[in-house]
Amino acid sequence: MKQGHKGAILITGVAGFIGSQLADNFLAKGREVFGVDNFCRGTEKNLASARRSPNFKFFEIDLSVESSVMGKLAPALRGKAIAEAWHMAANSDIPAGVSDPRVDLRDTLMTTFNTLLLMRELAIPNMAFASTSAVYGENPELLKESTGPLLPISNYGAMKLAAEGLISSAVESYLKRAFIYRFPNVLGPRLTHGIIFDFLNKLKINPHELEVLGDGTQQKPYLHTSDLIEAMLFIRDKSKERVNLYNIGPEDGGATVAEIAKAVLDGVKSKAAVRYTGGDRGWVGDVPKFRYSVKKLADLGWRTPSTSLEVVRRTVSEVTAGA
Amino acid sequence: MKQGHKGAILITGVAGFIGSQLADNFLAKGREVFGVDNFCRGTEKNLASARRSPNFKFFEIDLSVESSVMGKLAPALRGKAIAEAWHMAANSDIPAGVSDPRVDLRDTLMTTFNTLLLMRELAIPNMAFASTSAVYGENPELLKESTGPLLPISNYGAMKLAAEGLISSAVESYLKRAFIYRFPNVLGPRLTHGIIFDFLNKLKINPHELEVLGDGTQQKPYLHTSDLIEAMLFIRDKSKERVNLYNIGPEDGGATVAEIAKAVLDGVKSKAAVRYTGGDRGWVGDVPKFRYSVKKLADLGWRTPSTSLEVVRRTVSEVTAGA
Repeated sequence: MKQGHKGAILITGVAGFIGSQLADNFLAKGREVFGVDNFCRGTEKNLASARRSPNFKFFEIDLSVESSVMGKLAPALRGKAIAEAWHMAANSDIPAGVSDPRVDLRDTLMTTFNTLLLMRELAIPNMAFASTSAVYGENPELLKESTGPLLPISNYGAMKLAAEGLISSAVESYLKRAFIYRFPNVLGPRLTHGIIFDFLNKLKINPHELEVLGDGTQQKPYLHTSDLIEAMLFIRDKSKERVNLYNIGPEDGGATVAEIAKAVLDGVKSKAAVRYTGGDRGWVGDVPKFRYSVKKLADLGWRTPSTSLEVVRRTVSEVTAGA
Repeated sequence: MKQGHKGAILITGVAGFIGSQLADNFLAKGREVFGVDNFCRGTEKNLASARRSPNFKFFEIDLSVESSVMGKLAPALRGKAIAEAWHMAANSDIPAGVSDPRVDLRDTLMTTFNTLLLMRELAIPNMAFASTSAVYGENPELLKESTGPLLPISNYGAMKLAAEGLISSAVESYLKRAFIYRFPNVLGPRLTHGIIFDFLNKLKINPHELEVLGDGTQQKPYLHTSDLIEAMLFIRDKSKERVNLYNIGPEDGGATVAEIAKAVLDGVKSKAAVRYTGGDRGWVGDVPKFRYSVKKLADLGWRTPSTSLEVVRRTVSEVTAGA
């Protein structure tokens, strides 16, 4: 039997944008899934499909609270033969964590900390973690997994980096293996915030003019959730290290904010004028430009089928269609 | 006036091994020092010299508790024109954090988090931070500041890495500048634990045989506190980046555990037999071998005057003399 193809799956943040689609994917393959969320950012609507499966059990738990995790979740999951924890619960709103650093501390760092306590307690051997390009900070180099120093410019990036460290340290001590996936910007159905959402909301308020933060030249790689999940599962199956650290993303240099604005306007057939606020970045904590090396992932055998701009256009049509 | 030569200094962990010597150094130069400690690992004895200065004010506060920091310390320090916070408060016992990850979370991460809240509240512009070689994890390369990935093998290393990230992110948002010093193993007077202490304690219990964890080949760079402090102040004065990240250490490959055992036996004139427990490392979370590049620091103009083994011998004589 191939590794990772038996035992139940634990998914944290299961009612979220990525966690819920990951649950649907595992359930479609007949896997047993235990899902945890506190509906802080996740929604019951995202669970609609998972809820229809007899293999899905859901726990409404705030993972940032140790007593809830160890007092309620651990007893409920004891003896369930969970093979892998997919830890997707986190703050996903970077500006929120810039104004109040407690947000990333609580929702990213403490949820990771307590998930690891749970894994040690229940002897769950493998962990998969949603990390981010934000750990690299603002670095003009082509970002490889070995790039350093890691000097994040947002608490979002700092607490993801902290979580990576806790997981790496746990592998030395009690975990069998870990998969650390450094996500690019991710788009797709069930998206709840971010640039495409912002643009659509602004157009609802003022259909004649679209205000765009920065000068439009910010440029980042985008990946669709369906491709992201395929990549994560591919790495889970093929990579053989103890700590498996991978950038996941497209091979292109990304889509610019100006291109995204145009894609949104085209998508909703709007003729609004675009007005740039100016400056090289949208907001404090925003990394205005980065470019990923995805050579390690390509060498393992996976490449995304879509360019960043194709992903943007596809998401605009999914979001406007109400997906 | 040269930068960093006016305004008061805040030192966290001021009653500790390094913090207390740093306070003595600043006070000797006539600087006003506000010191904070909770006597978790620090001692009143270490403050004896600082307490004699009229320029020293001490606050017994647990920095890991936000309400103490913001409710007690912040009001007491308001209006004091503090120019720099030297954040030395941290867990320093790596094995303690392997058995209970809450130790590093509380004493390293949360003290950093709350010190940053304090700095934002009081507009303290500059931060100096005691980081560590442990952020690099187990990496056979010559460790440069740009070396990655950073996959620590202890919660100690993970939470120091997390603290680096929070500080770097704060510089983007509200700090003016930061100095992140990656310490090697540090020895000197007021040392409270670590290999030399362990060996001396073991010899008190059994004067005939010295049990040494591992096979004696573990090898690490050692620096004396007096040189470490000189290096930190040198970097503070000379380096001009916003986030100033430096390895601090000797240029040699370090002293081996076998050499340290011999130095301790020589120091106490013992003829005990050395017995190795075997294996390539002493304990979980121990990085058995690492070698620092200190080229960045040498290029700035500072080199340590002592080899690792000289530092070990000097410390054995200081510790046995009761320094």
